[in-house]
Amino acid sequence: MNLTIDREVLLENLNVISRGLPNKSPMPILTGIKLYTTESDLFLTSSNSDISVEVDINDSSLQIEDAGQTVVPGRVFIEIIRKINSRKVNLFLSDDKILVIKSGNSEFKLKIMDSFDYPKIDFVPLENPLTISSDILKDIIKSTSFATAQSERKPILTGVNLINSLGKLIATATDSFRLSQKIVEIPEYKDFNIVIPNKSLDELLKAIDSYDGDLSLYFSNNKLLIAYKNVCFQTRLLDGNYPDTSRLIPSDFPTVVKFNKDELLDSVERVSLLSPRDKERDKEITYSIIKLTINKDRSVEISTTNSSMGDAKEEIIPTSIDVANPITIGFSSKYLIEALRSFLSTEISLNLTGEIRPFIIRGEKDNNLTQLILPVRMD
Amino acid sequence: MNLTIDREVLLENLNVISRGLPNKSPMPILTGIKLYTTESDLFLTSSNSDISVEVDINDSSLQIEDAGQTVVPGRVFIEIIRKINSRKVNLFLSDDKILVIKSGNSEFKLKIMDSFDYPKIDFVPLENPLTISSDILKDIIKSTSFATAQSERKPILTGVNLINSLGKLIATATDSFRLSQKIVEIPEYKDFNIVIPNKSLDELLKAIDSYDGDLSLYFSNNKLLIAYKNVCFQTRLLDGNYPDTSRLIPSDFPTVVKFNKDELLDSVERVSLLSPRDKERDKEITYSIIKLTINKDRSVEISTTNSSMGDAKEEIIPTSIDVANPITIGFSSKYLIEALRSFLSTEISLNLTGEIRPFIIRGEKDNNLTQLILPVRMD
Repeated sequence: MNLTIDREVLLENLNVISRGLPNKSPMPILTGIKLYTTESDLFLTSSNSDISVEVDINDSSLQIEDAGQTVVPGRVFIEIIRKINSRKVNLFLSDDKILVIKSGNSEFKLKIMDSFDYPKIDFVPLENPLTISSDILKDIIKSTSFATAQSERKPILTGVNLINSLGKLIATATDSFRLSQKIVEIPEYKDFNIVIPNKSLDELLKAIDSYDGDLSLYFSNNKLLIAYKNVCFQTRLLDGNYPDTSRLIPSDFPTVVKFNKDELLDSVERVSLLSPRDKERDKEITYSIIKLTINKDRSVEISTTNSSMGDAKEEIIPTSIDVANPITIGFSSKYLIEALRSFLSTEISLNLTGEIRPFIIRGEKDNNLTQLILPVRMD
Repeated sequence: MNLTIDREVLLENLNVISRGLPNKSPMPILTGIKLYTTESDLFLTSSNSDISVEVDINDSSLQIEDAGQTVVPGRVFIEIIRKINSRKVNLFLSDDKILVIKSGNSEFKLKIMDSFDYPKIDFVPLENPLTISSDILKDIIKSTSFATAQSERKPILTGVNLINSLGKLIATATDSFRLSQKIVEIPEYKDFNIVIPNKSLDELLKAIDSYDGDLSLYFSNNKLLIAYKNVCFQTRLLDGNYPDTSRLIPSDFPTVVKFNKDELLDSVERVSLLSPRDKERDKEITYSIIKLTINKDRSVEISTTNSSMGDAKEEIIPTSIDVANPITIGFSSKYLIEALRSFLSTEISLNLTGEIRPFIIRGEKDNNLTQLILPVRMD
């Protein structure tokens, strides 16, 4: 193998590849990046237990003298290419054990790994894609992924559920204390019901961050491949049945209060400085419990009581209020803060059904986005 | 106690006070901030084992209804004042156990600590100051503090030594593998020889970061008080004799090589990506050892050899070279990188005496700044 390429082009592709590169792996070969050339193209591949990424570089700056393949230690290779400051990079194999990286006055000799040890990655065949804009997928991930379970106790809840049915794509995430749901219209496509690991979605979001064109999605039994530009990003899907959440979301709300989103966020963040930490429901996460009270006179208060630190209380003026009875609900401020941040709308509504019944949040300008939070019992 | 003050003014002073606030303390009362008012001034005090800070607020926005004193939980009080978004803050004591913080629609009731438990802080009497510009002290700290020992095995080396003698202030730091020295001219003042803990200097640097006026330094046996604006920043001094380092710095250099500082830095950072990690000299710190070679033909190379990863090598063109014999020195890239970053000069010189003798770095525009590094033996 002997090739020359623009450093910038190589680095940009390595940044995408790094999304599939594990820091550690039970298979050491997977900490490497596979480089493989045909006469005209350079392919880079990375893979871990969840994600495999492949890029096909066919850039005008790429000059291939000799075709070949190798596996290089991934992190250090990326760091070297990042730190080099010449425009061109020359990569060639010397004596089968060494990849030489020449650029300007620098020469790195990197011990390579045996490319025969690199596992064959089964990519889903590129047939019958569902084509959607990357904005739709980014929106789905940002609206739902944060609400997935972080603990592995119920593995299926660590993913986002995507159901396609009747031309509607329903994306749902829940950790069983809150739920996020986004519904989008997509082109006609066969029905599917899949669960994508939250880590894969986080990495995908980073990979497509600066890309705003279309994505092609290819489905198999246990994998999803997302192709765009010169990139194939593949993730495994989670096994098992995602719980049916359709009946969890209430539809009748005796109490609807609307707020300026930023004012509500500020208020909740201030009050939660003094909220007690409740570790009871989930040992791994610390909850800050705050109260929202709608008084008889329709004034609204956010408050917290903390036996060791003190109390906090603020009045917040709703932009509109439609209330049946005075009501007090207690809930995790973290859940409300994360839910509020998922809205683009300036004005959001809290829709309440009862003191210990789930309440939902909607935004006037966020179509088909529902955030649901389960209150805690206040004694 | 009952007072009203501009939130901005209070927050700015709390940011200074936070420099002396411990996160944890064997004396829980010290995690609090002491508030004390006369009829016209509000005093804030914080203290930990190294540092005590006091500010005297006499701002036109300050209105004191009732004088008094209290101790409030430090971190949460600062966070509340930071998050409040109204212009004015009203603080008052209610029923002796509660400090009420009112601002806009927010009301925080913070459980206070018993101000009788707060220890009396002995501040050095404000007599006979040494007055120097804050720029001089910032320069001394930035030029030397990074070279102090991080481990407590030789406690005296965790501080910066300041010797005043014959109108010259000599600041020295060493961890016994490298040494930084900055000499500055100061106004006539009695001789002193003190060692200031590196942590105190780091906090002082943050406290005076945006201040560019004069500082008044007051000395006692075991403390140094630095006064500026409305702030008194006091640090304990380290006990013991600082080693005499005056004979460590060589003065005759058969080999002098000058480089563009940024080019040398880039080169060293790239090569050290592949340098082996050497933990032998000091178990707590990982060293990356690189080599600098001056060849017979006066070309200069930075290189490293790593039995597990591979090799790196670059040629770097000196801006001038005055060399007796070809020479190779090996040293920690971290030390050279930190030393180079302490110079403002565009061009710096490496002054070499021998393969295992200390070498020093100087900058054309950095007067009286010397960085010394002890090479390692290369086999």
